[in-house]
Amino acid sequence: MTQTGRPALLAALRALIGERATDAAAVREAHGRSEAYHAPHPPDVVAFPETTAEVAAIVAACAAARVPVVPFGAGTSLEGNALSVHGGVCVDFARMNCVLDVNAEDMDCRVQPGITRKQLNARLRDTGLFFPIDPGADASIGGMASTRASGTMAVRYGTMRDNVLALEVVLASGEVIRTGRRARKSSAGYDLTRLFVGAEGTLGVITEVTLRLHPVPEAISAAVCPFASFGGAVDTAIAVIQSAIPAARIELLDDVMIRGVNAYAKLGVMERHTLFFEFHGTPAAVAEQAARTQEIARENGALAFQSATKAEDRSRLWNARDNTLYAGLGLRPGARAVITDVCVPISRLAACLTETRQDIDATGLIAPIVGHVGDGNFHTLILVDPAAPEELARAKALHGRMVGRALRLDGTCTGEHGIGIGKMAFLRDEMGGAVAVMAALKRSLDPGNIMNPGKLFA
Amino acid sequence: MTQTGRPALLAALRALIGERATDAAAVREAHGRSEAYHAPHPPDVVAFPETTAEVAAIVAACAAARVPVVPFGAGTSLEGNALSVHGGVCVDFARMNCVLDVNAEDMDCRVQPGITRKQLNARLRDTGLFFPIDPGADASIGGMASTRASGTMAVRYGTMRDNVLALEVVLASGEVIRTGRRARKSSAGYDLTRLFVGAEGTLGVITEVTLRLHPVPEAISAAVCPFASFGGAVDTAIAVIQSAIPAARIELLDDVMIRGVNAYAKLGVMERHTLFFEFHGTPAAVAEQAARTQEIARENGALAFQSATKAEDRSRLWNARDNTLYAGLGLRPGARAVITDVCVPISRLAACLTETRQDIDATGLIAPIVGHVGDGNFHTLILVDPAAPEELARAKALHGRMVGRALRLDGTCTGEHGIGIGKMAFLRDEMGGAVAVMAALKRSLDPGNIMNPGKLFA
Repeated sequence: MTQTGRPALLAALRALIGERATDAAAVREAHGRSEAYHAPHPPDVVAFPETTAEVAAIVAACAAARVPVVPFGAGTSLEGNALSVHGGVCVDFARMNCVLDVNAEDMDCRVQPGITRKQLNARLRDTGLFFPIDPGADASIGGMASTRASGTMAVRYGTMRDNVLALEVVLASGEVIRTGRRARKSSAGYDLTRLFVGAEGTLGVITEVTLRLHPVPEAISAAVCPFASFGGAVDTAIAVIQSAIPAARIELLDDVMIRGVNAYAKLGVMERHTLFFEFHGTPAAVAEQAARTQEIARENGALAFQSATKAEDRSRLWNARDNTLYAGLGLRPGARAVITDVCVPISRLAACLTETRQDIDATGLIAPIVGHVGDGNFHTLILVDPAAPEELARAKALHGRMVGRALRLDGTCTGEHGIGIGKMAFLRDEMGGAVAVMAALKRSLDPGNIMNPGKLFA
Repeated sequence: MTQTGRPALLAALRALIGERATDAAAVREAHGRSEAYHAPHPPDVVAFPETTAEVAAIVAACAAARVPVVPFGAGTSLEGNALSVHGGVCVDFARMNCVLDVNAEDMDCRVQPGITRKQLNARLRDTGLFFPIDPGADASIGGMASTRASGTMAVRYGTMRDNVLALEVVLASGEVIRTGRRARKSSAGYDLTRLFVGAEGTLGVITEVTLRLHPVPEAISAAVCPFASFGGAVDTAIAVIQSAIPAARIELLDDVMIRGVNAYAKLGVMERHTLFFEFHGTPAAVAEQAARTQEIARENGALAFQSATKAEDRSRLWNARDNTLYAGLGLRPGARAVITDVCVPISRLAACLTETRQDIDATGLIAPIVGHVGDGNFHTLILVDPAAPEELARAKALHGRMVGRALRLDGTCTGEHGIGIGKMAFLRDEMGGAVAVMAALKRSLDPGNIMNPGKLFA
């Protein structure tokens, strides 16, 4: 945006929301950074709306001025999904973080998009219900819906795709629609809820989310299960899935990642390839699931199967898991991370992980592995020196080989982080002619290309 | 279509697929009927393709001639979803009913759309896997995907939305796309799979379906549980859901429906409002689920809790349940049915069902109730004399009141049957401004309006 255009835009937004629109340099810069390696892209103006009506007015003003609208939640996305690559107005949902209602009997709730998953679970504490989707970071619910996030409990509870019942969305025109109601299922026309979930704000701005909740399990137990061999850990995860044991979490951390977690979170576990499990259910069901899993682990060469039934032990374990990004970065102070996110059919997981680990080792790069292996999904954090473009190029080449491998194995370039600006070429490789269909849908709902432009596809 | 146009269309299709394109009156008429009360609408030509390439060529020919393309599976849909209301070419998938591959380790398979759910399960018999979605009728998988079908096991295994991993689709242009791969989850762009699931063929023709499968449970038990009061049955179902008992099926049949089922299927159960349950899991888990459910049922006044653990007893029970449409019709020989399909949040189900039953009783119409009550979804079969327009009008008025009630209770007009031609007004009532978004999406993918036109919205 030109220096002459920005004051006019700011004035237009100030007329709508007063001082909650700002072009202060510090605020713009804070909204132009991301958690990963991408270069910064600050917006021209940052707006902090408090109501859907304000969001609608902001979008209408942007449409009139033909400037981009970039929704912003907790800023934890990993592919530059919320960077203002073409400037414009960043709509920060920090002031729209209320729980609007909780229907405990129906196990659902309606929230504003700026609430984070931990804030939501704190608000649910006395209801006997919880919201299980846990991507590690304390992401906002709106951001999680927009990237179709999942995380550690997706193997049992599904992803945001499965746990969003309905949305309120502001369209590019400024019009407000609702995509569904609170019934558990519906065949009433096109599934607009699922169209906006995962659209990364490119089709509209989410202003309310109706979520499914789940009963807090009667009993929970966790287990830490180290292996001498990488293959033993992977095969155990696969066998647990194929045995239909309804584990709530099956997480793999390779020895490199465990070293990082031990250092960062003082976890004090054996520095081996390790599976973390969690089981939810009645006391009897949990005991049976754990016993069956332990048996499978033993058959695959597990070195131990340390149970954690006390809440504080489990909490320590999963907090450590949630912080693998920071623990990984801690392995190389000052580094930035290229974070990969491939997901493959479970029968291909052993091949995919083993080849990936060999590929990493051959590059000499530090790249710990952490995976939601019950879903066939895993990440590597390729640590690069931000001052060394050659390293970034090597990391990107490694990432490209991983995606190529995943696609050959009938998998996807992204299980849960989305495309953003970081995986646009991979989307074309993966989806082929279907990208043109996505682009046609985008044009039909956003003909002026103002909704988070420059993401997903050109 | 004019009498002069039809021979040209037939000739064009015969050039593509020979005698497998026909305008024989008997074939056209058979494809112009539906299971419910709707008037017949035969197509001009019926085509029986054998490959995706043939489907693509047929669609391209229809696009060139500007005539409708209406996909047809098993013909079991209930809202006229596959009627050729504007004539054109009915594409019957009877000859595309193969299982293309089964990946037992990944618990998925790829099928052609014409295969029925029972054919698929017969093919899976030796794999240890099954496909759980059971809408009652032996519907085709393509049709089930297109109407976002669900049925008795959705409470445990989800709907077609949750169990379709990916699709191959022929677009209005004749172009073929794939909407995804075999990874269990993905954040790679817009969720095209979910866009085509439930689109009733109005956005494209499904030519392949990749499905999730599930392990055949180690143990299965069923139970029949009659109640003196309607409220006791409904409250039991609600309490089971809220207790997080992972029942595989929770079906309600009211006393009228039980009378029909006893007569049609010689089931020989007490003629009371009755819940049918099924439990899946390990032997210990199934026993625990059944015991907890029995306790809840007793607290709510159940008259009995008859377990059925033998496969043949369960098979008899669920075959009887699957045939409720025909059993219901048997209550009034010669009648046709207006079939309702509302779905409400579970906390509203008792009010919705009780008011509905009173409303039916006040009309004097015969309308048995059968419900997937674990999902908040139930049907009434309003039996009407096809020769009495006044009765049809009364039945439609009753249906309208049911939908109004469901919408006031934050529910939907259709849990699983779709909109077709029968619920277009209800879709507008339910979705408001979102219908315009659906129409915009439709125009973007089918600008010539040739894909199953006249369905969902005008």
